[in-house]
Amino acid sequence: MKYKPEVAGAILTLTSDFGTAGGYVGAMKGCLLSLAPHAAIHDISHDITPHAVSEGAWCLRRAAPRFPQGAVHLAVVDPGVGSGRAGLIIETERFLLVGPDNGLLTLAAQKGGFKRAIAIADSPPDWTRSTSFDGLTLFAPVAARLLLGDAPERFGGPVEGIVELPWPEPLREAGQVEGEVLLFDRFGNAITNITPRHLDASTPRHLDAPMSGRVQLASGESVRWCSHYGELAQAPDVVGALWNSDGHLELAIFGDSLRDRRALVVGERVRLDLNG
Amino acid sequence: MKYKPEVAGAILTLTSDFGTAGGYVGAMKGCLLSLAPHAAIHDISHDITPHAVSEGAWCLRRAAPRFPQGAVHLAVVDPGVGSGRAGLIIETERFLLVGPDNGLLTLAAQKGGFKRAIAIADSPPDWTRSTSFDGLTLFAPVAARLLLGDAPERFGGPVEGIVELPWPEPLREAGQVEGEVLLFDRFGNAITNITPRHLDASTPRHLDAPMSGRVQLASGESVRWCSHYGELAQAPDVVGALWNSDGHLELAIFGDSLRDRRALVVGERVRLDLNG
Amino acid sequence: MKYKPEVAGAILTLTSDFGTAGGYVGAMKGCLLSLAPHAAIHDISHDITPHAVSEGAWCLRRAAPRFPQGAVHLAVVDPGVGSGRAGLIIETERFLLVGPDNGLLTLAAQKGGFKRAIAIADSPPDWTRSTSFDGLTLFAPVAARLLLGDAPERFGGPVEGIVELPWPEPLREAGQVEGEVLLFDRFGNAITNITPRHLDASTPRHLDAPMSGRVQLASGESVRWCSHYGELAQAPDVVGALWNSDGHLELAIFGDSLRDRRALVVGERVRLDLNG
Repeated sequence: MKYKPEVAGAILTLTSDFGTAGGYVGAMKGCLLSLAPHAAIHDISHDITPHAVSEGAWCLRRAAPRFPQGAVHLAVVDPGVGSGRAGLIIETERFLLVGPDNGLLTLAAQKGGFKRAIAIADSPPDWTRSTSFDGLTLFAPVAARLLLGDAPERFGGPVEGIVELPWPEPLREAGQVEGEVLLFDRFGNAITNITPRHLDASTPRHLDAPMSGRVQLASGESVRWCSHYGELAQAPDVVGALWNSDGHLELAIFGDSLRDRRALVVGERVRLDLNG
Repeated sequence: MKYKPEVAGAILTLTSDFGTAGGYVGAMKGCLLSLAPHAAIHDISHDITPHAVSEGAWCLRRAAPRFPQGAVHLAVVDPGVGSGRAGLIIETERFLLVGPDNGLLTLAAQKGGFKRAIAIADSPPDWTRSTSFDGLTLFAPVAARLLLGDAPERFGGPVEGIVELPWPEPLREAGQVEGEVLLFDRFGNAITNITPRHLDASTPRHLDAPMSGRVQLASGESVRWCSHYGELAQAPDVVGALWNSDGHLELAIFGDSLRDRRALVVGERVRLDLNG
Repeated sequence: MKYKPEVAGAILTLTSDFGTAGGYVGAMKGCLLSLAPHAAIHDISHDITPHAVSEGAWCLRRAAPRFPQGAVHLAVVDPGVGSGRAGLIIETERFLLVGPDNGLLTLAAQKGGFKRAIAIADSPPDWTRSTSFDGLTLFAPVAARLLLGDAPERFGGPVEGIVELPWPEPLREAGQVEGEVLLFDRFGNAITNITPRHLDASTPRHLDAPMSGRVQLASGESVRWCSHYGELAQAPDVVGALWNSDGHLELAIFGDSLRDRRALVVGERVRLDLNG
């Protein structure tokens, strides 16, 4: 499938850890509209925890693939701004990504069908790059130009070996899958790295995945399978497990924060014993 | 008045307690634009306190009726997601509401002129519902289809007896109105359930409502009527009262949070003695 | 240069300290779209610290000038709502500003090329002003009318002597510039009032400004010049200085909050000794 910018019209999304109160996000929007007046700008989030590249990568992975074919997704969570790290344009089967080469874009790139990465070498003409704010002075004008139809090659050459986000794979051994908590959502639910493909190659889609096997926290506490959290309404202290809308094993407690109630942290071990 | 989707073009608003950092709101926007590319999506809020149905209902009541005729308002604050609770389309004289049957939509529905409620029985074709995320896999595609002109009946049949938000009515007796604090705004101002119609049937509009009678907190502290909070600038520890832009009796302290300064809580009693 | 509303189409931005959960921002958007259905509304921020006029002014100053020629920028951070303070329309060479006369608009007005200020005397017809919410009942309908092409004079007459934001100028004396911290950004970086024009009239653009001279905190701690913060990655406890994208001297510590690490406050003295 070829990348077709015309399909989406001119949809551009924004994801950052800037917050909005500083006015930097507003400045980026103004810059985008000044260069591409017909851009349809959509905020994904500006509330990523400051410098939390991994959180931003997950946010982008969830949201970007849902947008129409051909959208441009601009993302900036960039603790290394101004250092040697490259800026990237990543082309996928479905969309373009623009942002720093620090792993932020890679989860979404996989979901979209990675094709190639371009290291940004040149700023668009008439733009002066500021070393403290690539979001405004480099990525936004590049994204606007892409939206207007400029080819990615316009801004640099292909690059191999982009920075990958550390992605812990579950261990599988003798009917056991040992995974871990990747992150928590706003409700304190724990999202793990265990997906149906770690169970059995014959259940590729999470909606068909069996809710069976014994799930345990590192503490040894057993978790109850449920098809939705409402099933736990009468069991207020029971931890429930389900396959969430991303296809990951997710753990929760009804009407409360599992993270707080069990003092869990990112990296917490979660075990799924298929024969349990 | 007939519901006329054509009047608004294709305005769709979003209200939720998802926050934005998880990417779920972005995913919903992507889904909406994929199905209805010309949708004009406007965020009302994604910062509703998690699971605070009542807060979301008030937010929606304030915002939705201001939008043009025919807009579709999608709202998800849904502690019971996945349980037996129905999903609703509510048709009013002025707009459509889509969301869970838990009271979230009812205040806005009253303001818009309630006509009927449809319990959502069918997902739009080609959509697979995930039990953990109705916002993305049920409500968003239904809202997109409504925006494209599908009739509400397309998705289910009429339902009676939808869940109402508990709505405390003030007590009125012998020239006294005893109400309570419904919620606080971001500034710590207290919004009560007392409106001009609790005073006198002849003052239906709050802008004509008299600023008279003695207002008291539960502690017995007297409150001073003012036509705007600026009148209290020289009285830094005085609690002021006015009829706010929603037509509710609102209490505040100048330049500070009344909630914090008086340690008030939702449900706090407020008395208005008309003869005081 | 003449003000040309036609250039921008109908771009309107919103900046406030309302947060979104109360629904007031949603109500303003609804009002704007009801009056000006083709308005392209863009959020700058609704997360300004409540009543922080100066923070809002900086946010607006950063963002507004980046938007296309002719945009209307509506801003409300208004501790004095309902008091005698006037509402303003400010016309600049590049854009229009609408909001309270309390200094909120003045930094952006300077950046846009101030032309004149109009004190709003009349509400648009058919609008009833509520004393507790000028954002919705005065500024939004005025902004919508301006977007539709109404002349600012339609709403009032010219006014001299609008309220200026207190703007501390650095002291310059014998090769020393003594400035102060104006505000912190979300990352805890400190932005000062020292700009290249305080150094030397021959370096008007901050990108040409020399990174030389000795920079010191009030504590006497020396600050290291860097062209980007990444240079400090190997010096985790060193405070760095650079000219930021706004052209102000900015101080930071790599990967952490300088404010927290050095317990700095707004107003903290910063000294730049040109001969140091």
